Amino acid sequence: MDHQPLEPEPLLSLITALRRLPGIGLRSARRISYYMLQHDLQGLDILSRALSNAVINLCHCIQCNNFSENELCSMCSNSNRDSNLLCIVETPADRNILEASRSYHGLYYVLMGHLAPLDGIGTHELSFERVLKRASDGIVKEVILATNFTAEGETTAHFLSEALAKIQVKVSRLARGVPAGSELEYVDAGTVAWAMMERKPT
Amino acid sequence: MDHQPLEPEPLLSLITALRRLPGIGLRSARRISYYMLQHDLQGLDILSRALSNAVINLCHCIQCNNFSENELCSMCSNSNRDSNLLCIVETPADRNILEASRSYHGLYYVLMGHLAPLDGIGTHELSFERVLKRASDGIVKEVILATNFTAEGETTAHFLSEALAKIQVKVSRLARGVPAGSELEYVDAGTVAWAMMERKPT
Repeated sequence: MDHQPLEPEPLLSLITALRRLPGIGLRSARRISYYMLQHDLQGLDILSRALSNAVINLCHCIQCNNFSENELCSMCSNSNRDSNLLCIVETPADRNILEASRSYHGLYYVLMGHLAPLDGIGTHELSFERVLKRASDGIVKEVILATNFTAEGETTAHFLSEALAKIQVKVSRLARGVPAGSELEYVDAGTVAWAMMERKPT
Repeated sequence: MDHQPLEPEPLLSLITALRRLPGIGLRSARRISYYMLQHDLQGLDILSRALSNAVINLCHCIQCNNFSENELCSMCSNSNRDSNLLCIVETPADRNILEASRSYHGLYYVLMGHLAPLDGIGTHELSFERVLKRASDGIVKEVILATNFTAEGETTAHFLSEALAKIQVKVSRLARGVPAGSELEYVDAGTVAWAMMERKPT
């Protein structure tokens, strides 16, 4: 008995390609391939075209570094946004949640990551010099650091804040505190401690 | 303040296309898109080509109904396989695990599903007539029912067994030994090998 690969070549290639997606292992890649080939051939076709379209037509906005179709993204070229405010976030997803909160009407800068020296991502890789140049355009009056409240996000905010101290601009950080709608009993002690230290007069 | 879509069109299309994959919701689709656009553009390109290649070059083997590059798949055209044995499985993944158990050297028929009357999948949709025709080619001596040991798999095996009773062929079922209620794909190969060896006539 001779051993052959279990799957025909185009199927193997598809499974291998799907495994490059984050969070998709061999079993998921197989399951997805079988399912789509059996039930949604049109979906595979649409996905194929969406992928090559994204590769060809997306770039980074020269001003905010977010994904964009044009050199300058639609938000950066929107004159209704308050260009005195610049909010620095780690990822496009972070920007989306800030937009969803409807609490901010300024512009953004998307770092596309955070400082992670062990992974070789330093201030140069995150192009801090670009952030600094952006913040010192004379129009920006306040930079709001909205990186995550994780160890990496806090470190990134710290270094950004040090770098921004050199230029004439106000620097602030999102407030720490108890999440809206939550009960104290179920909030972790660290958060409660922060909320206590940063308490505000009513 | 006017509201614009949060993402540029090629990114939105990519996210929408990814959501057609089973098990991928909006948040996963966003995370995958951001990650790949930032870290693995080449992977997107490879996936795009693998998808259209699979759509164009894969068909169902005319003999075993599994995915194949050719009219007759490599296993069905392999003369080293025992063509007296025909094993009926629900999915390609089930066939793979049987192959991994190295307890079977015959041929397969892949149903690509199981009876599910509530979803409109009956004996006609699973083309039982094709299975019957395949089993009555005069070469097949024994049909082994290797559908899952779930309610749907058992029902499918029961109806197959009734249909196959009309033709001159021995019909057997994988031995119980596979834990009841579980799916073949998630059982270890040793257990599957045991069940194959202990198969009983119905």
